Parts: sequence; structure tokens; C-alpha cells
Amino acid sequence: MADTAFNPYAEGIDHVELNPDAKSVHILDQTQLPNREIYKDVSTPEECYEAIKKLEVRGAPCIGIFAGYAMVVMAQPYAELPYADFKAKMAELSAYLNSSRPTAVNLSWALRRMEGVIAAHEGESTPAIIEAMRQESLAIHEEDIAMCRRIAEYGLTLVKDGDGILTHCNAGPLATSKFGTALGPILLGEEQGMHFHVFSDETRPLLQGARLTSYELAKAGVDVTCICDNMASIVMKNGWIQACFVGCDRVAANGDFANKIGTSGVAILAKHYGIPFYTLGPTSTIDMNCPTGDDIKIELRNPDEIKEMWYKEPMALPEVKAYNPSFDVTDHELLTAIVTDKGIVYPPFDVNLKKLFAEEE
Amino acid sequence: MADTAFNPYAEGIDHVELNPDAKSVHILDQTQLPNREIYKDVSTPEECYEAIKKLEVRGAPCIGIFAGYAMVVMAQPYAELPYADFKAKMAELSAYLNSSRPTAVNLSWALRRMEGVIAAHEGESTPAIIEAMRQESLAIHEEDIAMCRRIAEYGLTLVKDGDGILTHCNAGPLATSKFGTALGPILLGEEQGMHFHVFSDETRPLLQGARLTSYELAKAGVDVTCICDNMASIVMKNGWIQACFVGCDRVAANGDFANKIGTSGVAILAKHYGIPFYTLGPTSTIDMNCPTGDDIKIELRNPDEIKEMWYKEPMALPEVKAYNPSFDVTDHELLTAIVTDKGIVYPPFDVNLKKLFAEEE
Repeated sequence: MADTAFNPYAEGIDHVELNPDAKSVHILDQTQLPNREIYKDVSTPEECYEAIKKLEVRGAPCIGIFAGYAMVVMAQPYAELPYADFKAKMAELSAYLNSSRPTAVNLSWALRRMEGVIAAHEGESTPAIIEAMRQESLAIHEEDIAMCRRIAEYGLTLVKDGDGILTHCNAGPLATSKFGTALGPILLGEEQGMHFHVFSDETRPLLQGARLTSYELAKAGVDVTCICDNMASIVMKNGWIQACFVGCDRVAANGDFANKIGTSGVAILAKHYGIPFYTLGPTSTIDMNCPTGDDIKIELRNPDEIKEMWYKEPMALPEVKAYNPSFDVTDHELLTAIVTDKGIVYPPFDVNLKKLFAEEE
Repeated sequence: MADTAFNPYAEGIDHVELNPDAKSVHILDQTQLPNREIYKDVSTPEECYEAIKKLEVRGAPCIGIFAGYAMVVMAQPYAELPYADFKAKMAELSAYLNSSRPTAVNLSWALRRMEGVIAAHEGESTPAIIEAMRQESLAIHEEDIAMCRRIAEYGLTLVKDGDGILTHCNAGPLATSKFGTALGPILLGEEQGMHFHVFSDETRPLLQGARLTSYELAKAGVDVTCICDNMASIVMKNGWIQACFVGCDRVAANGDFANKIGTSGVAILAKHYGIPFYTLGPTSTIDMNCPTGDDIKIELRNPDEIKEMWYKEPMALPEVKAYNPSFDVTDHELLTAIVTDKGIVYPPFDVNLKKLFAEEE
């Protein structure tokens, strides 16, 4: 057990950190949440690979941060190697780590960035290169914190003290860095003395809302109530929700977006009850090459996650089929605004998303 | 284990039956579903009480049927008593059984009906009275089957062969008698050679959809797919659903109705996707003394059903609150029609429900 419980507020305590000697990464094992807060140090390539594979570290941005640190840690035994050998060894370890979860975009992005540092420092001593890698890995982490902070600041302008906020799945610090995306405005607001009443959909089948979102909000002292997904309608009808904040896995050029299964249902309910519905995420999540939500492929997962996982015994007959899509697409017409690290984008999304990227150039 | 598996089609096999000697009731223990089909015979007052209390027998109409049979069975040891003593003993046993689940309306209704038989046969021999009770208990069961059959026939006119049908919670044979209410049209259609594709919401927190609905549909040979409640939106968006059939616990005079938590959310989604949404139930469920859904009190249940039940270990921190309403109210504006044993009622519900009862008089 850790000597210090995870708390997104506490300075210098995070769920993924490079230890001071840069020889191991200190991680909170998310598979043990919410019942056990077990921190562990990983250092060998196999330990780093397993940490991602087994979802001890999860959430695309969080995996990216971890991968940066893992490259530094895995480099240490090779500080004596000449440049070419070191570079080849690191390319091999990078490919190995990348194979742990091939679909996680941030994983390959962070690994490419670390390899880029090695290439850019050709001619320098290997210890100097490792130090440059260490700086880069810290930068990846700091950039994520800064980006989440900007999303949180923009999002916070959309709610007021005392508001009820409904969220779905987990887009908090555990999936990213300090503030998270969808939970960012809530955590930043609390830091500034505001108080919200958060309703966290448990998010079947894997229960990220119950296990992770309600965990991290409770730890941060936020008033949080866990509900089953099918209770969102009555909670809205009761007048308890003033805004919905959800994350996003991919935003199309017209504002349609993919997020955890059930998100589109929450959006339809919010529209019915006249409640604003926001998705929050970094601009890197917006895919201008993807015209609409119809172009986003939805991952189908193992039906046993519905029928068997988490239970003492099966909850449906073996011959009963189960349909288990991991994500769904929410139509842009149901969306009030997209909150990004570069500002809040309102409809018409096709026009205003283009403007967002045009301003950047 | 039973020699014959539960099958709502099989003649003479039901999940609640009076044994031929009228000395015990043969029941399928619903607490063991879907993993074990355990039939048992209950005969003593204590066994009958526990069968209801422990939800071995559940579903309001099903409890009513069981209560009728239980009164016959409990009467047998007192066949030698003179009338006054017999009547007093049965009143005592009736009150005892009624205390097992005081809120189940059908339980007290069936017990009153059985006591009415005793009163009506004053002057006859006790064995003759017990025989009259036996006839009455069989009549209660047969009437429920006939009523469910009429609901099924009316409901079947609303769908066509090959349709996809979404249902929520359990309003099938296990909760009633042979056909059930919301599942009636599906089972009757299958009996007539039609085939439907049924999507069964698992229905958190107690999972009646996964444990009971998908169980009884699979046993009856119906194509059934279990989904998490938050997947209803994507299933509708995929074009897989042509109608929603749900039960009802109480219908107000304006057509608002209470049913298992999550029903109102399904209705809002159906309206968004342009899918007809029906509630099916006997006219006894319509409460003309209840003006609107606002007058229906919603039972709040133990938060641990959300946070702990069914799981190997808690899925949320002890300090996380959980809101656990058992039912919600669906606004009549979301409802396409109410299917009853006396016909299909369309909007305006306030006018047409009055007509339904006026015709009856």
C-alpha cells in the first residue's frame, strides 16, 4: 500500500511519475481501484509492457506519459553503449512497448517523440542523450497537464457554483494527468472554492464511472453520486443536472464524436430535458480528415464483458447473445459545444472547427 | 434439478402449479435463475411465506397466483375443523402470508378473494369448501393466462414478422403466467410461426433483463440479444428496433406510467429515433384515481444494490453516494399506445382511458 493516497490536488503526487533516480516509473495500479491503492515501481521492459497490457496504466494520454518515462527507464542499462548501438536498442524496446496496445494512438505518438530526441542528439554522449530523453518525458507530462488545465479553464466558464453535472465513463486525472478532460472544470472549480454536485454514470459493462470517476472525485473531496446508466433520465427530470460533461475519443470534422458506449443516449436525454451537453478534449482528438461520425469505426468487444465479467456467476444463459460495442457516435446536433485546449467551439461545427485549425496555422 | 426445464410453451408445465393432490405448490425458484432451474414443492405456511419473501416467486400477478394455491395447500391439515374454526384459522394464515410482502397489491387481492370463497360457502362441509377454494385458485391462474393472452393478441397486431423489439426489465411469463405482458406478443407470435429479434436491456441494478427476460425468451426459442442499458441508443440508431414493448406498474389517468427505472430513458430514445413505444398491462394497472405521473411515489432502494450487489467486491468507494430509485415515470407524450386486455388505447389518453372504463360499465 502507498504511504500517500492518490489525490489529484496534492502537489508532487501523481498516478504516473518518474522516480528521482530515473531508474523506475512509479505508478498507481488502476486495476486494483477502487478497493486498493497499490503503487508500484516498474523498470524492466517486461514490467513496462505488462503495466500497459494489463491496464494497470490506462487512458490514452496517461499511456503516452507513461511510455515517455518508460523509455528513459529502459535506457539506463545502456548508458555505456555507443550511439548507433544505443539507438538500435531503443528502437527495439520502443517497438516492443508499442506492441502492448497497438490501437492506443498516444502510445505510438509518445514513443516516436522519444525516438526523435535520440535522433536529434546524434553525436552527443549516451548519458547526455538519456538526460535529453528525461527532459522530453517530463515535457510530455507537463504539456498534458497544461493542456488539461486549459480545457478545465474553458469548461469552467460554462458552469456556476452549485451546479449539478452529469458525466459518463472516465475522463478524469486517472486517464490523463492532473485535471483530466471532462472532470477538469469540476476539479479546477473545487480548487477555486466552488462546489458541484456530480452524478457519475456507472458505465456498464466495465464500470469505469463507478470504479474510477466516482473514486477520483471522492478522493478530491467532490460531492459525487454514482448512478446506474438507466437512471440518468430521472436525475435530469428531477432538475438536478445543469450541464453534462463527457470526454471524446475522436471528433469528426462536422462535430459528430465517438465516446464510450452510452454517450449518445445521455446526449439525447439532455436535449429532451433542455440541458446543455458538452464534450471536452484536446484538439489532437479532432480528426479533420474524418468527415462525419459514419466514418468512425466502432470496436466490438467480448460479449462476456456483459454476461460474465465482475460477477460471481454468469448472469445470462450461455445461449443468450450479447451485443457489446465499446463506443457510440453522438450526432453533432445533440452537442452544445466542444471544449478544447484552444477554446470552446460552438455550432456550426463544420465551419468553426475549420476556423479553429486555420487560426492555428 | 427439475426433470423438465421451464418452457412457457410446454402444455401443463408452468413455473407455479398446484400439485395434483393439492397438498403442495410446485414452484420454479426464481432466485436461482438463470444458472440453475430448481423446482421445489412448498406446503407449510412457513415455506409459502419464505417463497414470497425470498423472491423465489416474484412478479405481482405471479405472487397472486401463488397465494391462491398456497391458501388451498395450507387449508388441507384443517379439513376436519368445523366451519367457524376453519374460517378463523384461514384468516390467520392469510394475514401471515400477506405480511410477506405487504406492498404487493396482487397478493392481498388474491388472499381476499380466497377468503371470500370461504365466506360464500358457509354451511357446507369443510372438505367441500376446500374444493371450492381449489377451484377458485385455478380460476385465478386461468384468468391471468386469459388476460395475458388478450394483451398478447392486441400487442401482436402492432408488429410484423421479422421485427426487432426492444424490452426493458422483465414483464414475461415468470412475472405473470403463461404469456406475460410485454413479452406476450413476442411469445404468441413465435407460437404462430413468426420470428422476432428481441433486444433485452440487462436492467441494472438487479439485472432482471439479463437474468429473467433473456432466460425465458431463450428457453422459448426466441432470438434474444442482451445489451447493457446504455446500448439501447446505438441499437435503435442501427435500425434494429421497430417497436419497444415494456410493462407497467401503475398507469395514471393521463397516460403517464411508472415502470422499472430506465423506462423513461428508453421512451425518450424511441421518440428521438421515431420508434413506436408501447406499454402493456392489464386494466387493473390503470389507476383512474391517480391524475398524473407526479402523483406516483417512487420507491428508493438500498444504494448497495448499485455499489455492491452481484460483485465479487465493492465497485465504488464506501464514501461514494448512490441514488437508487426502483422505478421512474414515463410521460404520456412519449407513449404511442397502452395495450390492455380490453384493447389498445391511443392518445389523447385522458379521454380514451375514461372511455375504456365507461364501456366496461
